[in-house]
Amino acid sequence: MIYLDHNATTPVRPEALDAMLPYLRESYGNASSLHQLGQKARKAIEQARQQLAAFVGADSADEIIFTSGGTESNSAVIRGVLEARRHKGRRMVTSAIEHSSIRTPLQHLGETGEIDHVVVPVQSNGIVRVQDVDDAMTPDTILVTIMAANNEVGTLQPIAAIAALCQKKGVSFHTDAIQLAGKHSLRVNELGVDMLSLSGHKFGAPKGTGALYVRKGTRLAALILGGKQEKNRRGGTENVPGIVAMGAAAAAAMKEIPAETERLRSLRNLFEELVLAGLAHTSINGDRQERTCNTANLCFEYTDSSEMLMALDLKGVASSTGSACQAGSAEASHVLMAMNIPQEKAHASLRFSLGHSTTEDDVRSAATIVMEIVTRLRDKNPLWREKGK
Amino acid sequence: MIYLDHNATTPVRPEALDAMLPYLRESYGNASSLHQLGQKARKAIEQARQQLAAFVGADSADEIIFTSGGTESNSAVIRGVLEARRHKGRRMVTSAIEHSSIRTPLQHLGETGEIDHVVVPVQSNGIVRVQDVDDAMTPDTILVTIMAANNEVGTLQPIAAIAALCQKKGVSFHTDAIQLAGKHSLRVNELGVDMLSLSGHKFGAPKGTGALYVRKGTRLAALILGGKQEKNRRGGTENVPGIVAMGAAAAAAMKEIPAETERLRSLRNLFEELVLAGLAHTSINGDRQERTCNTANLCFEYTDSSEMLMALDLKGVASSTGSACQAGSAEASHVLMAMNIPQEKAHASLRFSLGHSTTEDDVRSAATIVMEIVTRLRDKNPLWREKGK
Repeated sequence: MIYLDHNATTPVRPEALDAMLPYLRESYGNASSLHQLGQKARKAIEQARQQLAAFVGADSADEIIFTSGGTESNSAVIRGVLEARRHKGRRMVTSAIEHSSIRTPLQHLGETGEIDHVVVPVQSNGIVRVQDVDDAMTPDTILVTIMAANNEVGTLQPIAAIAALCQKKGVSFHTDAIQLAGKHSLRVNELGVDMLSLSGHKFGAPKGTGALYVRKGTRLAALILGGKQEKNRRGGTENVPGIVAMGAAAAAAMKEIPAETERLRSLRNLFEELVLAGLAHTSINGDRQERTCNTANLCFEYTDSSEMLMALDLKGVASSTGSACQAGSAEASHVLMAMNIPQEKAHASLRFSLGHSTTEDDVRSAATIVMEIVTRLRDKNPLWREKGK
Repeated sequence: MIYLDHNATTPVRPEALDAMLPYLRESYGNASSLHQLGQKARKAIEQARQQLAAFVGADSADEIIFTSGGTESNSAVIRGVLEARRHKGRRMVTSAIEHSSIRTPLQHLGETGEIDHVVVPVQSNGIVRVQDVDDAMTPDTILVTIMAANNEVGTLQPIAAIAALCQKKGVSFHTDAIQLAGKHSLRVNELGVDMLSLSGHKFGAPKGTGALYVRKGTRLAALILGGKQEKNRRGGTENVPGIVAMGAAAAAAMKEIPAETERLRSLRNLFEELVLAGLAHTSINGDRQERTCNTANLCFEYTDSSEMLMALDLKGVASSTGSACQAGSAEASHVLMAMNIPQEKAHASLRFSLGHSTTEDDVRSAATIVMEIVTRLRDKNPLWREKGK
């Protein structure tokens, strides 16, 4: 199999699996227990917290809260800022290309009347304009949340500029950096964000792990209350094996950046070059430069993306029609729609996302298979026979 | 080591670890992905859902929602009922001996003025009176939440009777069954509950796994929104390995009940008999009959529980001063306080909780060590020398 769906999820890195196994076997203590078995778990968690803090460049490990995943981290920010800052205002500003873990809770709170939900458009290259964010901010804005890198087309957003704007206006700024982490260097102080979400399984940790960076001094109420875990910021027995694995995955990924970034970028570029050279009426969605190193979102006109995906799958190539979290939906991608890509082009677009295990052979084979399948599907399409050729 | 802290957490069962490992290795797909790797993960989750449904005796697997743990399940109920039934009223009724994952969010919502938080007392045996729950329910009551089994003293609560009451009055009834699951048979239809929380790591699954049973037709808003996972009731990429492990742990535990229940009960009783026969001024906290099979909460007068715990730990016996989630707190257990146990007795009480791996040898050795340590600590205590002997 050639797995080109790393933006959906990544294989667990061997370093992460090795690190977690003892905590699934003999070291099974509850980190809140006072006996030795508990204290061993506590120590392991605090080491992982240091690893995550280093991974994002936090000033202190105390700024890392462990969660069950990226979606929980994002919900925690939206609900937590609303509760902590409700007295300051009710407007939350976001972009038109956010992941459903940001879009859905904001839409929901907008519909129930708890917030004013303001969506800033993006340009046709899939990048938000800082001026548009600025224009959307009114004095009663309490949160701006803009993703660092888009999951479907990979576009990088001007986070540092937006963060500076928010800081000047005294508005909390959060970025969903789930698709940036593990691919590119991630430094919260360079970005200037107040809060940042991570999902472990997007960078080689197992599913069910996530983290939230919260800059010291940021006001945020807890989403999940219970015991005193995570300094009262997230109740619940810590997922010790998962946390340990996420720490190990972060440390391993960090060591490889930026060499791995460059390796993936050149493999991705090779893939695109091969496919674009071999196929007419094929184009890249999203800005070609300001993009994550691993993502190729390609439009194969006169094909249907669901059919493509299935045909590729039968040939052993795993790809995606967009976000896995929206898979199976008949609607066109909201990201491509926001970029003003016509619906028929959106329905002919496919995402290929490379990762740690991807080799040059993978990329060359996948390109060949893609070209074969596109050619075959087009030959069956009357529209192509009429106009495309 | 003799691990007598199974109410804090349990070792991962070999069946659970074996079941999850393929999903931490080669079968790493995102269950929302449409390709084969994704569909394999989807199938595994749905099998686990069947296993959990069987474990609690649900009518349909659709009534099971996977969460990241018991605390999330409990928060999801409290916030979800509040949002779904806010128009019906604002009163939430609970008992005085709930776990912090129920107490803390209710207290918080009470303090912020979003609900009226009503706490029903318990009798000195650690059991709530049905009449007291009835008396606490007013027409604007939207939720009653009473735990099935207490985590500290193990007392079983009259869930079926309270559920019948709630049904008659049209009030949602939830039980935190985290400490019952895996120890005793659990049938949602016999209990008559609308919602029921489970935590995987309390019955041999890894940490970071949980479930919420929601009876068909129960109104509940989602706590964590995002993708369409769990039929829009809990967003976020599913923790496939954890869910699979929880399914396997549930199936394995279910097969052993009630034989394992009886085995644990006789081991626990043996432990108590040995200790009570060997030590004066020692007593059992909580009802002796209506108790989980595995829990012994013992008061060793003229000792200090923290000192006891540390001394036991040095001798290789893992125990607890109460809930792990409250460990390290200087306050006396709220459970023992609610039972009208004097503070000095509460501070002299220790919880021993048996589990799947516990043997008769463990129990006999632990009893001997406990007796030695209690004797030694009492000999150093001037109060004991004056009055105790």
